[in-house]
Amino acid sequence: MKDLVSELLAGSPRALARLLTYIENGSDEATSALARIYPHTGRAHLVGVTGAPGTGKSTLVNSLAKAYRAAGQTVGIVAVDPTSPFSGGAVLGDRIRMRDLTGDRGVFIRSMATRGSLGGLARTTGDAVRALDAAGYDVVLIETVGAGQSEIDIAREAQTTVVVEAPGLGDDIQTIKAGILEIADILVVNKADRPDAQNTVRALRAMLDLGTNRPHNRWHEARPLTGHPAPEHPEEPEGEPWQTPVVQTAAINDTGADALLTAINEHRAFLRRSRRLQLWERHRLERDLSTRLQDALLADFLRHISREKLESTVNRLASRDIDPNTAVRQLLTYWQDNRDSHVQTQYQE
Amino acid sequence: MKDLVSELLAGSPRALARLLTYIENGSDEATSALARIYPHTGRAHLVGVTGAPGTGKSTLVNSLAKAYRAAGQTVGIVAVDPTSPFSGGAVLGDRIRMRDLTGDRGVFIRSMATRGSLGGLARTTGDAVRALDAAGYDVVLIETVGAGQSEIDIAREAQTTVVVEAPGLGDDIQTIKAGILEIADILVVNKADRPDAQNTVRALRAMLDLGTNRPHNRWHEARPLTGHPAPEHPEEPEGEPWQTPVVQTAAINDTGADALLTAINEHRAFLRRSRRLQLWERHRLERDLSTRLQDALLADFLRHISREKLESTVNRLASRDIDPNTAVRQLLTYWQDNRDSHVQTQYQE
Repeated sequence: MKDLVSELLAGSPRALARLLTYIENGSDEATSALARIYPHTGRAHLVGVTGAPGTGKSTLVNSLAKAYRAAGQTVGIVAVDPTSPFSGGAVLGDRIRMRDLTGDRGVFIRSMATRGSLGGLARTTGDAVRALDAAGYDVVLIETVGAGQSEIDIAREAQTTVVVEAPGLGDDIQTIKAGILEIADILVVNKADRPDAQNTVRALRAMLDLGTNRPHNRWHEARPLTGHPAPEHPEEPEGEPWQTPVVQTAAINDTGADALLTAINEHRAFLRRSRRLQLWERHRLERDLSTRLQDALLADFLRHISREKLESTVNRLASRDIDPNTAVRQLLTYWQDNRDSHVQTQYQE
Repeated sequence: MKDLVSELLAGSPRALARLLTYIENGSDEATSALARIYPHTGRAHLVGVTGAPGTGKSTLVNSLAKAYRAAGQTVGIVAVDPTSPFSGGAVLGDRIRMRDLTGDRGVFIRSMATRGSLGGLARTTGDAVRALDAAGYDVVLIETVGAGQSEIDIAREAQTTVVVEAPGLGDDIQTIKAGILEIADILVVNKADRPDAQNTVRALRAMLDLGTNRPHNRWHEARPLTGHPAPEHPEEPEGEPWQTPVVQTAAINDTGADALLTAINEHRAFLRRSRRLQLWERHRLERDLSTRLQDALLADFLRHISREKLESTVNRLASRDIDPNTAVRQLLTYWQDNRDSHVQTQYQE
């Protein structure tokens, strides 16, 4: 175990791959390794790339990775598909997309598929990003499919979010969702060599203009633990707001990836300058801590309450003798009265 | 408040609409009203209808509602769009889709858009379904967009899940996800009047045949609170497994809605016969109770811990002095040591 972590920190892709498997399986090795690599995280730029199927998002991620390599930076890629419960296809996808980048030790690609709950996937993604960060990759690209809430939750793990659109799709009001513009730091129109690409670019610019005065919601969200705003962390970041650019690419020909890379770097500089990077991290830490606390508190609660008590509560709910709020109140009172009669519990993850 | 609940139970659409607004806004009125209507729930058949944009899902839901009305049953519809953060558009959509059904007191339609977190939306949907159930609608249709994890979480609130596909879309391997087949009790090929519809039907049947032996995962999931399996609730339901039918509709002409209604009723009968309806409810109750317990436990924890303590923990995480697991362990130990020195806390929702 000690070897795994030291090898990972020394840059071994094999050690990294092993840790990612532990993370995906939720095994105990992951927990202790993540604790040990934690001090080495926080260096990589975390870039989310999201878009509907058919936008050529994966091709764009590959093209962008090559641009980073040409600029001398190393790249880790986590591809997350919240709609697929199987990882078999994902692994196959890795092999196909690896073709261009095979043999380059400066690029690491890993696909992750849905296992279990959404919270699980968002947290697994976060842990995977931490692993790639500690392994020393300069940039971590987080690729997700689509535009649903699950993708938005995963995109929150990114510091800079790139939303990919394509011509044709853009004409359908259903595909350009207001929610997606809300999370986009950079908009990309891929397949920009198609004749109708300019319509999509114009439509996106028009939507952005309409939203000029919209608040950057992400910076106004209450933090889950310490609330909003903390006196020493005023929520309004300094300086000018960010103007979301629309970048045109034709990733299949590697066209436009340099312009996208420049836009991403400008956004990174903007985040630093305006103190938003700090704010972003604080939100992320509190979100993560809050989820972990809920899990640990429920585990502690379940240790202090008998299975019979739980079964009988669920039975009374099923027969409509009590309602869910009453059930929670009764269980918590019972727990309060009983927890102190138990031996002090060791909290273990 | 008492009036709202009695009016709702007496079938007032105005009272129902008001409660749904309270639920959407997460107001205190919702909590107490939901507790009071709870004994009157559990009667409606809860049917989820999900599909990608462009499959004609909303038209199908309307057509299905008319078929139910022709069969003398009342219908409540909750349309959930997890990708839209705004409810304005949703309300407009209601007006458009209401045209056919305007003036019919046996149909109630409500759109709900994303507010806040996913857990929030899945719970809001669940509460809305409970309200429609208590209001006496025979069938509640839960309409969701797409195929992501958030839709799957919302679909879990349904007893029978209908997945809608359309010709053309079906040829693209990306759109028919294995995960969607997994949750489908009934598959619909809408727009079946199109020439290429038979290809989609064949492709879906082939995928179903391949998966003949797949376990019905929903019945094998561990229950979140009491684990798996409880001795008195063996998880393997009785009788033959369900064979997912592929139903063809052309909802725009109201073709095929009767066949779909028949398939839905057969699934309902199957659920009753095989005891799966009981199992489904137990899973749902434990999922709901588990989330509520986590929320209540975190709220209790936060009442016993100072903001300064939390801020300093987050600061130490940000500076990488401690890792998240250590932070959770330290906070819980601190909480254990301190909670008993406080006055007994009243749990309030």
